[in-house]
Amino acid sequence: MAMPKSVITFLTDFGLTDTYVGEMKGVVMGIAPDTALVDLTHNVPPQAIAEGAFLLGAAYTAFPKGTIHVAVVDPSVGTERRALLLVSTEYCFVGPDNGLFSYVIRDGYRGARTQARKGLARVPPGWQAFHLNDPRYHRPSVSGTFHGRDIFAPAAAHLAAGVPPKEMGEPIEWLVYSQPLVAKREGDTVRGEVAHVDCFGNLVTCIPEGMLPPGTVQVEAGGAIIHGLSRTYQDGPRVLALIGSRGTLEVSIRDGNASKELGVGTGVIVTVKPDARQQRAI
Amino acid sequence: MAMPKSVITFLTDFGLTDTYVGEMKGVVMGIAPDTALVDLTHNVPPQAIAEGAFLLGAAYTAFPKGTIHVAVVDPSVGTERRALLLVSTEYCFVGPDNGLFSYVIRDGYRGARTQARKGLARVPPGWQAFHLNDPRYHRPSVSGTFHGRDIFAPAAAHLAAGVPPKEMGEPIEWLVYSQPLVAKREGDTVRGEVAHVDCFGNLVTCIPEGMLPPGTVQVEAGGAIIHGLSRTYQDGPRVLALIGSRGTLEVSIRDGNASKELGVGTGVIVTVKPDARQQRAI
Amino acid sequence: MAMPKSVITFLTDFGLTDTYVGEMKGVVMGIAPDTALVDLTHNVPPQAIAEGAFLLGAAYTAFPKGTIHVAVVDPSVGTERRALLLVSTEYCFVGPDNGLFSYVIRDGYRGARTQARKGLARVPPGWQAFHLNDPRYHRPSVSGTFHGRDIFAPAAAHLAAGVPPKEMGEPIEWLVYSQPLVAKREGDTVRGEVAHVDCFGNLVTCIPEGMLPPGTVQVEAGGAIIHGLSRTYQDGPRVLALIGSRGTLEVSIRDGNASKELGVGTGVIVTVKPDARQQRAI
Repeated sequence: MAMPKSVITFLTDFGLTDTYVGEMKGVVMGIAPDTALVDLTHNVPPQAIAEGAFLLGAAYTAFPKGTIHVAVVDPSVGTERRALLLVSTEYCFVGPDNGLFSYVIRDGYRGARTQARKGLARVPPGWQAFHLNDPRYHRPSVSGTFHGRDIFAPAAAHLAAGVPPKEMGEPIEWLVYSQPLVAKREGDTVRGEVAHVDCFGNLVTCIPEGMLPPGTVQVEAGGAIIHGLSRTYQDGPRVLALIGSRGTLEVSIRDGNASKELGVGTGVIVTVKPDARQQRAI
Repeated sequence: MAMPKSVITFLTDFGLTDTYVGEMKGVVMGIAPDTALVDLTHNVPPQAIAEGAFLLGAAYTAFPKGTIHVAVVDPSVGTERRALLLVSTEYCFVGPDNGLFSYVIRDGYRGARTQARKGLARVPPGWQAFHLNDPRYHRPSVSGTFHGRDIFAPAAAHLAAGVPPKEMGEPIEWLVYSQPLVAKREGDTVRGEVAHVDCFGNLVTCIPEGMLPPGTVQVEAGGAIIHGLSRTYQDGPRVLALIGSRGTLEVSIRDGNASKELGVGTGVIVTVKPDARQQRAI
Repeated sequence: MAMPKSVITFLTDFGLTDTYVGEMKGVVMGIAPDTALVDLTHNVPPQAIAEGAFLLGAAYTAFPKGTIHVAVVDPSVGTERRALLLVSTEYCFVGPDNGLFSYVIRDGYRGARTQARKGLARVPPGWQAFHLNDPRYHRPSVSGTFHGRDIFAPAAAHLAAGVPPKEMGEPIEWLVYSQPLVAKREGDTVRGEVAHVDCFGNLVTCIPEGMLPPGTVQVEAGGAIIHGLSRTYQDGPRVLALIGSRGTLEVSIRDGNASKELGVGTGVIVTVKPDARQQRAI
C-alpha cells in the first residue's frame, strides 16, 4: 500500500540569508525524497525560544494529521540539552528539549492543568517522547554547532520514511517547560500581554476569546482605550480590537501599524473590562 | 488515469516573519497533498493592491497551464468584498475581489479594449468567475481576519483535488477592476511610469517595447537622459535603459542601484522620445 | 522503472521581494513537474559572485547524489559570458561561467593542486562541462536580462527530466575560476580571513580545522584574543572560537553578535597561533 505523503515543516531562527535551512532540507531529501517541505518561519528573533514556542503553537494545527514539525531555536546546541522527539496523538515534533514545545505540551492537556514542576512538564497523557540519542539516525558526523542539520533533520526524515519513533532513542517522561503566556482575571478585568507583533503591526495578545467579560468590553493597550470589538480590520473605530485568527484578542489600527503608532511591542500588558460607557448608560 | 500534478502559487503581503504563509500551505496539504507549492513573493508592501496586481501580472505566465495562483493582498478581509475564483483559459486565480487581478483581466482581452465601468470589468470572453461563498469548500470555522487560510487556501486545494469550479460558488459577471498602468503617446513622446523597483534598484516601467518610437530613442528618468537602448545590464552607458524581462522599458545603472542613485521610486514618470542628438545628426 | 525523484536547488542574489525566483520555479514546473525545489538562499549580496561561490561551496554537499544545483549571481547576464552546465561525479551545477563554481571546482581536485591559469581552471578529472548554447533547451524567447528564467531554469528542468548533459551544448574544457579563499601558514601562525558573517553574527573563516597548530591555540580577530577552542557556542569564554558546521574556524560571542560587537565583517584577517599563555606555562 502506498504510504500517504509526509509533510515536514520547519520553524527556526536561522533567517534566510545563510544556507542553513537549505542544508536541513538537503539532508531530508537524501533520506525521504517524497516528503513535502513547508516553512513555518525562519525569522524567529535569534535565540528567542519563548517567541518561537508561541509561533509554533499558533501554526501547527493548520497542518494535516501526521505532519512532522521540526523547530530549532537552540542557543545551547551541542551542550547537555537533549535532542527531542515528541509524539502527540496527531503530530510529531522534533527539536531541542529547551521549552520550545511548551505551547504544544500545554495543548496536550486539553485544558486540564499541566503536570509541571521546576521548569519541567510531564509528557501529556497518551503522548510519547524520546531522547534522540541513537547515532544510527544521525548524520554520520555530528557537529557541535548545527544539530538542525545533523540530528533534527535526519530524525524527521527517518520518521517520514517510516522508522517507528521508539526505535530512535530512549523514552523520556519529563520535558523542559516554560509556562506559556496566560491571561489573568482580576475581578471583572482580564489582563494579558502582547505575545507577538505581526508583520502588519497588529498586537496579538494571549487573551483567548473565551476569557472576555460578557457584554460590551473596553480594551486598553499602550494608553489607547477601545470601546467594543470589531469583527474585521475595517469596521469599527480606527484603533480597534478584535478576535484574530489565533482565537485571541488583537489590537489593530485600520490602514495603519498599531505597534508603531501606539509604541507597543511584545510583553506589554493589555487589559479588557466591561465598557465603562455602556455601564454608565445602563 | 493519473491526474497531472497540480501547482499552486502564493503571492501575498504577509511577509516571512509570521507563520501565515505556512498555515495556508498546511491547509492545502490537508486537502491536496500531492500539490507543488511555489512562492511568487510575500513581500508585497502591506495592503498595496496595485503593486501586488502588477507583480502577479508579471509572473503568472511563467507557470504551466493549469497552475492555480492564490493572491492575497486583502485590507478588507472579512467585509462585504467577495472571495473570488477566476478561471481563464489557462490558469485559475483565487483571492479577494478587490482589483488584485486587474492585470490578469486586462490580459484576458488580448489587446482588445477591456469592458469596464465604474471600477468594474466584465469577466473576459471565454473566462469564468465564481463567488466563493459555498461553505463546504471553506475551513470548518472561518475567521473574520484570515481568509487566506480559511477560504482561499482551501478553495485552491479543492480545485487542485479536482472539484469543478462551478461547484464552488455562484457565477459572477463583473469584477472589481483598477485600470493597470498604461503608457501614453503624446506626439512623438511616450510617457509611462515606474511600476516597480526591483531588488537591484532597476526601475521597471509600464512602457511596453511595442510602444517605443522607431529609431534611436532618448529616455528621461529622474533627471537623467539616456541615449539609445542597451541589450544587457553591462553594455552601453553607465546609466542605461533596456527592455527588461517583463517586456517593458527598464532604467538601470551598471554595477549600481538606479533607484537610489537617481532618487526615483514607484510612480515616477519616465518619458521616451526620438533621440535629439540623432535628429540633429540627420 | 520509476525515475528517482529529482531535486533542484536555487542560490541567487534575486532576493525575495521580486517574483524572479518564483518565475524560475514556474519554468521548471512546466518541464519537470515531479521535481522537488529547494532554496539555498536568495540573499547573496547583489552581484557578489565570491560570496555566492563560498555559500554554494558550503551547502551543496548536504544534498543527495544527483541533485541539480542552480546558482545565479550574474552581473554579466546577456553578454559573452557563457551559460554553464558542470557535471561532477555526484551533482550537476547550472549557472553563469563567471567563477561562481570556483569552490565546487576546487573540491573536484580532492585536495590536489587545481589546474588553473589566467583566471581559468581546467574541468576537474572525471567531470564534464558544457556550454548551454542549444536553443532547444532554452525558453522559446530568451531575454537579455534574465537567463535564470530563460536558460538556467529550463536547463536544470530538462536535466531533471532525463535529457543527457552532452545533448545540451558543446563541451568546455576551461572554466572561469577565482581562487577560493585559503588560509596561509607563516611559521607557527595561520592566517585566514572572514569568508561570511552568518545571521547570528558568527564570523565564519576560511581556516580549516586541519590547518590549526597542535595543542592549545590563541585566536585573534578584530582586536580580541581568544585562548583555546570551545566545542559549542555555550562553553568557554564569552568571546569564543570553535570549529563550525562548515569544518572551519568560527569566532562567536555567547548570546551576542560577534560581527557587531567586534566590528568585524567579511574580508577581515583572523590569525591562529599556539597559545602564548600555555607556552609561558610550559
